[in-house]
This record gives sequence, C-alpha cells and structure tokens, in this order.
Amino acid sequence: MTTLILKNLRPMGGELTDLNIVDGRFSATAPEGAEVIDCGGRILIPGLIEAHTHLDKSLLGMDWYRNEVGPRLIDKIDNEREVKVALGLDPQVQSERHAILAISHGCTHIRSHVDVDTHHGLAGVEGVMATREKLAGMIDIEIVAFPQSGMMTRPGTVEMMDEALKLGAELVGGIDPCGMEHDPKGHLDAVFGLAEKHGKPIDIHLHERDALGWFSMEEIIDRTIALGMQGKVAISHAFCLGAVDRGYVAGLQEKLAENQIHILTTAPASAPVPAVKELKEYGILTGAGCDGIRDTWAPYGNSDMLEKAMHIGMRNNLRRDDEVELALDICTFGGAAIMGLKGYGLDVGCVADCVLVEGATLAEAVVTHAPRKLVLKAGKVIARDGACVIEAP
Amino acid sequence: MTTLILKNLRPMGGELTDLNIVDGRFSATAPEGAEVIDCGGRILIPGLIEAHTHLDKSLLGMDWYRNEVGPRLIDKIDNEREVKVALGLDPQVQSERHAILAISHGCTHIRSHVDVDTHHGLAGVEGVMATREKLAGMIDIEIVAFPQSGMMTRPGTVEMMDEALKLGAELVGGIDPCGMEHDPKGHLDAVFGLAEKHGKPIDIHLHERDALGWFSMEEIIDRTIALGMQGKVAISHAFCLGAVDRGYVAGLQEKLAENQIHILTTAPASAPVPAVKELKEYGILTGAGCDGIRDTWAPYGNSDMLEKAMHIGMRNNLRRDDEVELALDICTFGGAAIMGLKGYGLDVGCVADCVLVEGATLAEAVVTHAPRKLVLKAGKVIARDGACVIEAP
Repeated sequence: MTTLILKNLRPMGGELTDLNIVDGRFSATAPEGAEVIDCGGRILIPGLIEAHTHLDKSLLGMDWYRNEVGPRLIDKIDNEREVKVALGLDPQVQSERHAILAISHGCTHIRSHVDVDTHHGLAGVEGVMATREKLAGMIDIEIVAFPQSGMMTRPGTVEMMDEALKLGAELVGGIDPCGMEHDPKGHLDAVFGLAEKHGKPIDIHLHERDALGWFSMEEIIDRTIALGMQGKVAISHAFCLGAVDRGYVAGLQEKLAENQIHILTTAPASAPVPAVKELKEYGILTGAGCDGIRDTWAPYGNSDMLEKAMHIGMRNNLRRDDEVELALDICTFGGAAIMGLKGYGLDVGCVADCVLVEGATLAEAVVTHAPRKLVLKAGKVIARDGACVIEAP
Repeated sequence: MTTLILKNLRPMGGELTDLNIVDGRFSATAPEGAEVIDCGGRILIPGLIEAHTHLDKSLLGMDWYRNEVGPRLIDKIDNEREVKVALGLDPQVQSERHAILAISHGCTHIRSHVDVDTHHGLAGVEGVMATREKLAGMIDIEIVAFPQSGMMTRPGTVEMMDEALKLGAELVGGIDPCGMEHDPKGHLDAVFGLAEKHGKPIDIHLHERDALGWFSMEEIIDRTIALGMQGKVAISHAFCLGAVDRGYVAGLQEKLAENQIHILTTAPASAPVPAVKELKEYGILTGAGCDGIRDTWAPYGNSDMLEKAMHIGMRNNLRRDDEVELALDICTFGGAAIMGLKGYGLDVGCVADCVLVEGATLAEAVVTHAPRKLVLKAGKVIARDGACVIEAP
C-alpha cells in the first residue's frame, strides 16, 4: 500500500487538508481508487529522526538488569564490555527490539553508533546490519563504527574499525580523545585517517567538559579544515558547549558554524548541554537522539523522539510555543539534514515518511506525546495506535 | 469497600505475598468473606505523594494556551495574574481536574500552594477547598497560602494571607525574599509572623540562586531557630543548594539538617537543583512535586509522581538500582514525612493508601511508569488501569 489518500489532517499543525500519496511520495494529484484514511483532524509531521542512539546495547525484552556499576565513564565502558557475553546480549535481536520500539513511536530513520572493539570484534555491526536488512522498508538505519572502548588504549581496534567500514558502516565514530583515549593526536588522526581512506563522514562522541572539551573540539575543527571535510563532521553530546564561560563558547560556535560541523544532543538532565537556541542563531545544524536506552549504562529511555523533544525543551528551558516547536524541529528536520536525507518533509515530491500526532498544536503534541495514531514509511503503514505492525522478537 | 484481600503482590518489590485490609488499614488477620483482588505478582508501593504543586493554576481540559510569555520570573507572574480572568480559569474546576489526574497516576496526598493576591483575593483557596471537600475520601489535599505576586510589593496581601489561614490553609507560603520581594526582612518577618500567629508550618518557594539564595536561606534558618520552629519549615526548589561551590553548600546543608528544615524539589532540568543523594547523607528530609502542570508558566507536566521520580533520577544522574529507589523514596516516604502523615506505609496498621505498579523491580517501575493497575485510598479503589474511577469535570 504505497498509494493512499490521507484525509482530514493538519500538516505541521496548520490548516485542515488532505494529502495524496502516490508510489510512496506525496503527490499533488489524487490517485484514483486509492485507499482513504481519515486522520480525524490530527496533526501530521514528518518521520521522527533518532540521530544518536546505540542499537546494539539495549537490554529491552531481557530480564531486568540490576545496575550496580561505578560512577566513572570508564566503569560503565569496562562493565558493559565484560558483561555482554554473560548476559547473552545478541546485537541482532536487541537492535531489532529497539528499532521496532522506535517505529512504534513514529521514528523512520535511525543513526546508530555500534561498538567496535577487540573483545567482540564486528559482532555488533553484523547484528545491526542483519536487523537493517530484516526491517528494510520499515526503517532506515545508518551505522557509525564506534570505538567505544578506545582505539589508542586497545591496539588492534583501528584495524577492526577499518573492517567495520569495509563491511558497511557509513560513518567513522570516535570518543573523548583526551579523557578516554589519553592521546588526542593519536585518536583524532586515526578517526580522520579512516574517514579519508574510506571517504566517509565522521560522528564523534565528546563528553569532555569545559576547557578539556574545548581543546578536543578545536582539534576536531582544525582537522575538518585541513581535510576539507566541512559539512561531513558531527559532534555528539558536546557537553563543553554547555560550559559557564559563554564568551569562549561563542567563539567555538562561530568556528563550528563556519565549518558546517553539526551537533547532536541527547539533552541529558544531569550534564551541561549545548544551548539549542544559540546553535540555531549561529546556524549550526542540530539533531537529537535518545542515546542508549535501557542498557547497562542506565535504566532510562524508551526510544520515543517526541518525548525526547519534550526533554530537550525542559533541559533548555523552552516554554513558549515557538521554542517547543524548535525542540521538535531538531528531532525531525534537524536530524534529517545532518543525516543528509533526500526528500524529507511533507511537501509534494517528498517521501511519505510521516506520523499522526495528538494535540491542538505542535507544542501540545510534544508535551503530551500520546501514542501515535499512525506512522507511515514511504506511504506504508508501519505503526498504528502506538504499536508497530510487526512484533518484536 | 474498605475490607479487602490483595493477593499475589510484592510489597516494595519484595517476596510475593498477600495483604489484608480491614477498615481501611493493613491488617495481620484476613477478613472473612472479604472481596479478593488478584494483583498478578505486581509490586505494591504506598500512595505517591505530590508535595509541591499548584492546583489552582493548571489549564488542563481547557483550550490549548499559546505561550508567548517573556523570559523572566516576573513576566510569568504578571502574565498569569492578568490572564486568569480572560481565560476563564475556575480554580475549583481546574483543581478538580488536576487532582483527578493525579489520582489516576497513584497519588493519594497533595500539598498545593494556592495563590493569594489582591487581584483574585481568596478565590484560589476557596476553589481548592471546594475540590478538597468534593474529593474527600479519594485524595487528601493540604493547602499552602501562597503570596505568588508578593506581599511587600503588593500592600494588602498580608491581610489576605491572614484570611486564607483563618479560612483553612494549613501552611504559610512565601517567595524569593530578595529577587521577588526586594525586602527580605519585611517578607520573612511577615511569613514567620503569620506562622507564629496561626501556629502553622511554613513552606517557602526559593528560586534565588547562588549567594543570593544562600543569604535568603540563612535568614530563614535564623528565624527558624529564633522561633523554635525546627521541623516545621520547608524550602521548596532551593536552587541555591545546586550551586557550584559545594563547600559553601555543605555548610548550609549542615545547618538545614541541624534545624530539621526540609527540602522539596521539583528537579527541573534547566535549573540548578539540590543534590538528593547529599541531602540524604545529611539526614535532610526530602520530598518532591511536579510543580505547576500545563499552565501559563509552561506547557509541561502530567501530575505523574512516578514519572517525576524518573526525572529526579535523570536530573541527579541516578543510574544504579539503589539510586533510582532513592528517587522513588523521595516521592513516597520523603514527602509523607514532610507532610507529617500518620500511618503512612505498607506495614500492618498503616492506612491502606497504595498503588500497584508494573516492573520486576522498583527501578523498573520508575523508569517504565506504565499506567497504574490499581490505586487504593484507605482500602477503597480510586483508580484502575490508569484511570480514576470518577471522571473529571
């Protein structure tokens, strides 16, 4: 069913109208004899974009994991690497469960970082690739080869990363060049070297705060300029942009904008975060993600990017309707632009990836985030009333 | 139906057992011929305690309010006072809608601040009192007379506060003695004077940050000592305890503990917040609340204290199971202790105010916050499957 008439809906909360879908795309002309769905006056938005998550890590559908992990970043990384096998975590099954949950909430595209390390090799990437194959036509999944346990600190990982990129990962990942790797030059040269070799973009985790994060960010900017990679580099988390010294941050934001380096925020409540209104003023493309959900790191998360828009709003003190709409824009058009999606949106000619949401306005849809009435992928129904049309394993 | 047998439940996530309710209280002996409810192995917790909200302000059930309010605290206060009439906000109807939503989520007790000002007089207090009467036996509501628009800056308000306390408000409220009132001595003398005159406890809003908040907090502590009001003063929000200078905060926390001054947090994601793990270490009683929900201040909130426990966890970076349990403890036993509830809990002899929640463990119940299967007030069913047994107006 890729030909359809959606009646009685409000695109982006605007005036009531009908939309036609022909061959999976929005069309100006109504297809004859097509199925008609009455949308009951609800708001239609384009598919939600989960632009930063970890499909290979979730424990969804498994026994409850009692978290007794230590407080440092390295405690969580080491614990996870060690307990994966004992828990029997199968990256294919877990990524399928995770992706199906995301679909149920109206997500049509996912960028997932996937662990690559010398302990588990490419098992994660292979598992997520199998899920991507299995769910083709329901959700698009982009894979970032992610050296979660470090490349400099764990010899052999760079070669694994190289393999992952050959196998099908679309982006090169990285992580805290100083705090985690203790060798910013070595780490970033490796990341950018892999990107250059494979002709692939970069999305690097940067949890480092304040001056340490600024230093690493400047090293990333320098390499982006040196390699002419403007528009092809994204920084996830970027907690250092949430620093108190707004003067220094302003300078950094100028450089990010100049070099079209994108920011992906997960808007955690307990860490400094990039100020999304400022990023918009600077013209820095901003997307968002739920980060890991229900994993050995933390028990939170449900893969709902409409609820994540609410969390972005709450974290950034967005109260006015236009501000809450910005949070939603980040979880839709922002992520889509960063992922370079073609034909994203509700205009004629766009791919009919879209979600019917509840509320009088976009802001109400965000703060209520009621179960989604309908989710379409290229005009095909993939979820109804908050449930995906297929069951998770 | 205040005599009942609850079969097949796990109190606080413990071993499977049955619980008897006789005359509205948990009992060691099973009542003969009593109705039996099978709880399906779910976890039973005591009633959730909403210890900081504003029942008179919510716009629940009304048309969507398009928020175009300015960024300062005073913008929100002035706007609300002015638009209440235009919006047709009826404090009785709105507080009833709000309280019924809270019941549906398993709330059995509410402490509500209620505006008292020269513009609207006692309309708010009268409205919430009418709701309290109407919902008697379903939820207990405690009223704080709250000078939202200031006492020093709006002559006549102190007299109104006096009237509100005579009328039935149980506590004296207050607000930012410096930032809002511009007269800390005048404001706090008035607050403590009213408390002394009426023999009532105090719960004061303190949004002031850093050194300004510390100053006001010390003024509150001094007056608590001078009047021997230890154990009878609570400070809501207390953003200044979330300040960077932990050394100064440590000194303040010692003084709060010494004088049994309680803290109520709403754990906003965008403001500094008291560190709940530290408060516990200091032995400071801590409760929580959703603050205003869906009002002219902000569009967020749904009156779900189990979700609020999750937000407290996320804001305080609580990841371990024992840490997430602390967040739940704040939303149950912490709030109950601050409100001085007698017979609160699941022990034999306690009032059977309780909630059946979903999850293998308490932490899972918090992060999932699925619709509540059953809510009892003194043994009477007040909500099932996420819906209150009575409909909101």
